[in-house]
Amino acid sequence: MSRSRLLTDDPVVVASGARLLSEALEAQAVPVADTDFHPPMAAPGGGDTAGDLVRVLADPRRGAANAEAVRRVLGVRPQLVDVRPAGEALELRPGSFLHAGPPVDWEHASGPLRGALMGAMVFEGLADTPEDAEAALRRGGAELEPCHHRGAVGPMAGVVSPSMWVFELADADTGRRSWCSLNEGLGAVLRYGAYGPDVIERLRWMSRVLGPLLRDAVRAHGPVDIGAILAQMLQMGDEGHNRNRSGTLMLLRTLLPDLLAGGAPAGDVAAAADFIGGNDHFFLNLAMPAGKLMMDAARGIPGCTMVVAMARNGTEFGIQVSGCGDRWFTAPALTPEGLFLGSFGPEDANPDIGDSTITETCGIGGFAMAAAPAIVRFVGGDADFALRTTRSMYEITLAENPAFQLPILDFRGAPTGIDATRVVRTGILPQINTGMAGRVPGTGQVGAGLVTPPAECFTAALAALAAEAPTLPAAG
Amino acid sequence: MSRSRLLTDDPVVVASGARLLSEALEAQAVPVADTDFHPPMAAPGGGDTAGDLVRVLADPRRGAANAEAVRRVLGVRPQLVDVRPAGEALELRPGSFLHAGPPVDWEHASGPLRGALMGAMVFEGLADTPEDAEAALRRGGAELEPCHHRGAVGPMAGVVSPSMWVFELADADTGRRSWCSLNEGLGAVLRYGAYGPDVIERLRWMSRVLGPLLRDAVRAHGPVDIGAILAQMLQMGDEGHNRNRSGTLMLLRTLLPDLLAGGAPAGDVAAAADFIGGNDHFFLNLAMPAGKLMMDAARGIPGCTMVVAMARNGTEFGIQVSGCGDRWFTAPALTPEGLFLGSFGPEDANPDIGDSTITETCGIGGFAMAAAPAIVRFVGGDADFALRTTRSMYEITLAENPAFQLPILDFRGAPTGIDATRVVRTGILPQINTGMAGRVPGTGQVGAGLVTPPAECFTAALAALAAEAPTLPAAG
Repeated sequence: MSRSRLLTDDPVVVASGARLLSEALEAQAVPVADTDFHPPMAAPGGGDTAGDLVRVLADPRRGAANAEAVRRVLGVRPQLVDVRPAGEALELRPGSFLHAGPPVDWEHASGPLRGALMGAMVFEGLADTPEDAEAALRRGGAELEPCHHRGAVGPMAGVVSPSMWVFELADADTGRRSWCSLNEGLGAVLRYGAYGPDVIERLRWMSRVLGPLLRDAVRAHGPVDIGAILAQMLQMGDEGHNRNRSGTLMLLRTLLPDLLAGGAPAGDVAAAADFIGGNDHFFLNLAMPAGKLMMDAARGIPGCTMVVAMARNGTEFGIQVSGCGDRWFTAPALTPEGLFLGSFGPEDANPDIGDSTITETCGIGGFAMAAAPAIVRFVGGDADFALRTTRSMYEITLAENPAFQLPILDFRGAPTGIDATRVVRTGILPQINTGMAGRVPGTGQVGAGLVTPPAECFTAALAALAAEAPTLPAAG
Repeated sequence: MSRSRLLTDDPVVVASGARLLSEALEAQAVPVADTDFHPPMAAPGGGDTAGDLVRVLADPRRGAANAEAVRRVLGVRPQLVDVRPAGEALELRPGSFLHAGPPVDWEHASGPLRGALMGAMVFEGLADTPEDAEAALRRGGAELEPCHHRGAVGPMAGVVSPSMWVFELADADTGRRSWCSLNEGLGAVLRYGAYGPDVIERLRWMSRVLGPLLRDAVRAHGPVDIGAILAQMLQMGDEGHNRNRSGTLMLLRTLLPDLLAGGAPAGDVAAAADFIGGNDHFFLNLAMPAGKLMMDAARGIPGCTMVVAMARNGTEFGIQVSGCGDRWFTAPALTPEGLFLGSFGPEDANPDIGDSTITETCGIGGFAMAAAPAIVRFVGGDADFALRTTRSMYEITLAENPAFQLPILDFRGAPTGIDATRVVRTGILPQINTGMAGRVPGTGQVGAGLVTPPAECFTAALAALAAEAPTLPAAG
């Protein structure tokens, strides 16, 4: 625009940041175009987030470290290789229990985690009643450890005890392993904190009948390509966290010939096929350890800003970042907002809980909601929200996974590998969709909804990355 | 705009119809906004289409007739009630064969229809070799009749012979029936015109093992709700014509307990489960007779302009319209454009063939492509094309089916019930996605793609509707 036109024509105004200027101009009928720029997050503790961001972005190791992390994550080929008792697979001793999320003790444990531990004590024969179990747990009569510390992941309360059976996954190339319990279905189930007699009886059947049948079928079949099923699910309306319908059916189809040929009693085979086919969430417990295998591949790369775990114990939300080893960055978990079952309402919901956020960490779940618009009837929102959510997750991730294609976005790869610096710089938090457990132990599931991690996890992780970044020589 | 500004400001031009004016203005750098208006279709035979349109739109019976047709179509509840030999279910005598599309004789039959008839002759033991069969067929040694004339539908060549087994569907409320053969899989199969020894052997196994196993399972299970599976498929990436993956898995899951409990040899059950689970198109042959049941409900309503059948025999495309009884309106079939298997190319493709367009007629298939964007990798196009296609089909349909919800369109019901008047008035032809058969008998499938009916079917149907419309009293 020449100087003379600047004086005679209408000005063109582009604004960024807070809308104070835009609103004042609009009130005077001056057209104004707002940009999407946001200032970086402020650290709630008052830290120097902008300074941390500069130090981490200037870390000369960062580019190569993140590229290496992406290469490793996208290179993982998760396969189901065995089904075994947790005691054997995870060397879990009687009286030891794994749980979801970062470390927590009984005193700080949420209602659903307490309920699940009480049920697991009864299931293991360490207590006769849930009340006895609660008294024993209060006295410190059990050893608690996060699933993540043993290479495992657990949905919701995520309680794993030695007699439960677990899926064992392996990376086809490196042989690295991960584990996850078998899915019990929805409603009043242990992982949502329920511990009634039907819950315990179901767990006993799963250990006595379902686990051994699946073990025999998987061993007869040979490694089951879980990555291939995940890729197909994303073309069949699943996102791998709260929709696993087609994944479950594909698993059933894959194992069926060996289930039939195994020579087990026909009634047991029919009951197992019924149980799997009747539980649309059965495959979640294979999507999760597949994600765990993918993200563990990126652990411990100096200078790497990729988030390798997001997990919640029902009290705190914790994240781990590749460049910071196994350190957890935690903050109080938020409570999901969404849709409730029956007469339950928001006051019944426990804060966010479970290791199932490993799905979002590896690029599916909430990150792939564009592939599964029907999920909004389960967690809330509308179809446009599902599309917008996936699109915005590209803003905070390091890669697009060519193996996980989203048809509605013209087969663009799922947004994969959360970059802690991008989260802080944009203020866009990872979008999680999740089940909701009842606050009161013994309740079970009360609904499903949407939630994010607390921002503090990311500003704290960034501060730790900044502290570990090499000091740059002063400018000459 | 005041008169003075009309003289001083730039003109604003809005154009409609052919782009001659727009292009001339654009060449002079004058901005021009084109509208979407199209004149009605011209009848290729030179008929008075505009006059026909006026007469049919003025038919006082039309509104109530179309409302009744919609009510009937949406009220159908298709259930799988039996599996039986075609000879028994359809009272098909030896030497009689059903085929897809409107009536056709051997002389005018296309390559794939000839190939399928030759194979069926061998399968029935009426000829020793395909060559013998061809000679017998040329001599008129078989009775040919459209599937649609017997309440049945057949994909591609659609050849049904007495020894083939068929699914029998019933409307839960009225008990009306429809039938369709069992799906053989893709590639070199009879319905694509292949007739090699492996094709005949597969058909024999289907009649000897698969059919009876399915019969026993369906009879033990009781009616299988095909409408419910169709509704779920549309939320799981299927559109019910060329994607039936989740539908097939849901059918397998549904019948599995009774397949297992039936006491049949485990090897046969395993082979049947393998065959169904390994054929992503197996459910097509249930989606089609479900559509047939829906659309037959709307037949024969005087003054009704709803299309109740679209079908192709590989030579001609034919449609039937409710207000015109069982009359076919035919024109030469177009050849699909799309993606080819292996080294096949456009010169290998036969013109459009099969009764599978009953899916589009009832609102799924090409009409529901928005639910199945991954299909564009099979038939061509991109995700936006899938969305635009479904959106444009609302322009030519009478209803939205609340049972067939499309999540990506915020659960809008599938566009259902093609209105012949809207097709002619807008010039928008129904969008079909389809398999492509090889032109040469014996070839099998060569690809999959996109096609429309020839426009002439609709102008001819409109002329017939106009001829039957009551003459209005002259204006006073």
